[in-house]
Amino acid sequence: MALHPKNVGILAIEIYFPPTCIQQETLEAHDGVSKGKYTIGLGQDCMAFCTEVEDVISMSLTAVSSLLEKYGIDAKQIGRLEVGSETVIDKSKSIKTFLMPIFEECGNTDIEGVDSTNACYGGTAALFNCVNWVESSSWDGRYGLVVCTDSAVYAEGPARPTGGAAAIAMLIGPDAPIAFESKLRGSHMSHAYDFYKPNLASEYPVVDGKLSQTCYLMALDSCYKSFCKKYEKLEGKQFSADDADYFVFHSPYNKLVQKSFARLVFSDYLRNASSVDEAAKEKLAPYSSLTDDESYASRDLEKASQQVAKPLYDAKVQPATLVPKQVGNMYTASLYAAFVSLIHNKHSSLVGQRVVMFSYGSGLTATMFSFKIREGQHPFSLSNIATVMNVGGKLKSRHEFPPEKFVETMKVMEHRYGAKDFVTTKDCSLLSPGTYYLTEVDSKYRRFYTRKAVSDNVSVANGH
Amino acid sequence: MALHPKNVGILAIEIYFPPTCIQQETLEAHDGVSKGKYTIGLGQDCMAFCTEVEDVISMSLTAVSSLLEKYGIDAKQIGRLEVGSETVIDKSKSIKTFLMPIFEECGNTDIEGVDSTNACYGGTAALFNCVNWVESSSWDGRYGLVVCTDSAVYAEGPARPTGGAAAIAMLIGPDAPIAFESKLRGSHMSHAYDFYKPNLASEYPVVDGKLSQTCYLMALDSCYKSFCKKYEKLEGKQFSADDADYFVFHSPYNKLVQKSFARLVFSDYLRNASSVDEAAKEKLAPYSSLTDDESYASRDLEKASQQVAKPLYDAKVQPATLVPKQVGNMYTASLYAAFVSLIHNKHSSLVGQRVVMFSYGSGLTATMFSFKIREGQHPFSLSNIATVMNVGGKLKSRHEFPPEKFVETMKVMEHRYGAKDFVTTKDCSLLSPGTYYLTEVDSKYRRFYTRKAVSDNVSVANGH
Repeated sequence: MALHPKNVGILAIEIYFPPTCIQQETLEAHDGVSKGKYTIGLGQDCMAFCTEVEDVISMSLTAVSSLLEKYGIDAKQIGRLEVGSETVIDKSKSIKTFLMPIFEECGNTDIEGVDSTNACYGGTAALFNCVNWVESSSWDGRYGLVVCTDSAVYAEGPARPTGGAAAIAMLIGPDAPIAFESKLRGSHMSHAYDFYKPNLASEYPVVDGKLSQTCYLMALDSCYKSFCKKYEKLEGKQFSADDADYFVFHSPYNKLVQKSFARLVFSDYLRNASSVDEAAKEKLAPYSSLTDDESYASRDLEKASQQVAKPLYDAKVQPATLVPKQVGNMYTASLYAAFVSLIHNKHSSLVGQRVVMFSYGSGLTATMFSFKIREGQHPFSLSNIATVMNVGGKLKSRHEFPPEKFVETMKVMEHRYGAKDFVTTKDCSLLSPGTYYLTEVDSKYRRFYTRKAVSDNVSVANGH
Repeated sequence: MALHPKNVGILAIEIYFPPTCIQQETLEAHDGVSKGKYTIGLGQDCMAFCTEVEDVISMSLTAVSSLLEKYGIDAKQIGRLEVGSETVIDKSKSIKTFLMPIFEECGNTDIEGVDSTNACYGGTAALFNCVNWVESSSWDGRYGLVVCTDSAVYAEGPARPTGGAAAIAMLIGPDAPIAFESKLRGSHMSHAYDFYKPNLASEYPVVDGKLSQTCYLMALDSCYKSFCKKYEKLEGKQFSADDADYFVFHSPYNKLVQKSFARLVFSDYLRNASSVDEAAKEKLAPYSSLTDDESYASRDLEKASQQVAKPLYDAKVQPATLVPKQVGNMYTASLYAAFVSLIHNKHSSLVGQRVVMFSYGSGLTATMFSFKIREGQHPFSLSNIATVMNVGGKLKSRHEFPPEKFVETMKVMEHRYGAKDFVTTKDCSLLSPGTYYLTEVDSKYRRFYTRKAVSDNVSVANGH
């Protein structure tokens, strides 16, 4: 019987999002909706999207290669690789197998793990699985690698501005700077039809927007309750928002993140009125006797609790909102893109702090869990992770599409979804060096990818 | 830092397959193929299939409920539930969430785990994940539950007789009668297009039959090599087929299982000629200098090695072939249905023995791993597991369809795949008491299931 390795968690992170994007303001004007509907109503600034040369496979090939290269990790050192995604390109063959050529090249095929699926929660499931593997008796001492990759697209209409696209790769092992507090974890899973993809031929989901928001907030309440109970059992005292330094939420759109944090503050108040000041008490008191259902429906409570929560939101949540606001909903990658924003903004100042994470996937599955941030040994330090990710640089070098070109791209992508027997333009002029891109899908649906030269004159072929 | 719990593995198993089936002999006659093409050529006896009232969700609802009830497990005692499947009914909402009503009923929503996907390997991935969870620091002391559920159907033509359908539920925890030897595990994963499902609107896969068989055998060789290496490192001596009492294979059709075991025997001979007797040496010697590719293509080697392996096959493999031969390919459930056959045939005589398992999923992902069989405490003993599964009774009470009715059923199912807005016949007359069945898919694609009364006059509604 062996001991669990200590401080298992995330050693390094890489994020990739397409360089092609559209400003939400531009989209508002083009869609003829009232000014502020997307920017204030949804709280979103900009949205990334894949053009016909990118997809969830190319993005994850890019994120994985980049992480291995930038941290000098030999592909042989990886013992587990798993992917979370809800963007289905093949119903049987996992995205993980599309990533294997990176490892096969150096003769490493002994790599466990497949794909995890449940809406936006698949990445969290993959992350938990990978951490558990390191802590299990079958761990062979090598690193784990978790990939979250999704392209969120919606039919024309009110949901379209809630799209986005990205891939995130995370290196997993012991002695991590981002360590799991494994006993602090509350899940809520149930059977719901808030957002799902039963129309197999279409890339677009079936969404009940109102139900989905209620499901999200109900799951949040339930997870928070369970999380607090476990904290109390462990620490012998009540948990409140004060006991964590940051809160990071799955972020389909920023407005929901604002509502969610306000909900936690309201929940703290209900459990212990002294957790808020006198002015706040007065504002929240009128809602203290609402039933749960009434409280989800009350716009007045929403407003009051957001007002009360505002200073705490600015300090504990806002630093984790940059990438989701700039890139959009990235489904499985959204929560980790929010966390990436926190590292980007706070890097080494996070050491010693507790970060509470809330993962949600429609259907539904949700977990609240927490990280303890540690010093970390080079190259796995928070400041180095922030430098390597270069979020600022990546955001700055993007190309804004005019709305007509965006709509045209969406039409091409709609047509291409599930299609075979076509070649792409192979135009990689907008992509950064080292980015993988799709060149062809042959008559047997086999997909071919190529990599844009990392430096001059070097192009690496990948796939069959 | 805590210690790993000991002997984590499978505490109990339940298997469900549809009571509707067709004899392969009958199908041969109907298809006008040569007699023996399916029964000897494929090595299959019979094939189960879902009618319009059953699917992968109803089958897994049945398997899970049945396991909990027969072992008297309170639904609150389950802390993790995960599903392996390649039968996609929804691209985002996991099958796991469809099972949650069983647990929500008693207020248990704090249950981790989602769906794992890569062809027939998803169930093994789910099983590994669940075992790792029990061994991890985040384990909360409750049981895990792993479900493998699939319906394998093929377009009319030569692949059609390789269908099948089943769901298997496995209860996971420490002190298990079926314990993992966690250090004995060899995986082989790579990028291949042997069998995949890129046509999202169709239930049928794209299959390159010849490539798929070669991929399977190559992966088997690679996993066996890695498994043997780990055994040698651990035990300080070479591994050969003699070191395991039984070998259980993923079983798309029995003929491939025969070929696979013969391949292992040939591999033993190549590594150590003295592992076989003089007569066998003579038979295999002509093939000892073939390249790998030549050896996969050689029909003569196939024949010779099967001849040599026959006595060992009868002793170490044949007891694990009953259910796959009788029910057909069950994708993720196939390997575990083969293992179920072994328990059915050998039950308590397995105590103290080593069982080597080979899991394969096209695309491709494969692992060879092993179980050590232990006494187990009631109700989790091998003999009780065998009694509760009642494989003999389940096989005996099936209903054989004439080929015309089978073809008609396949046409209905083809039409229904991915469809909405229909009600089923609700005819559950062929189903056993306690079986869940599909009653309706509404205009929003929402699926409704009901359970056939366990005893008289009790019908339990499930779902929305």
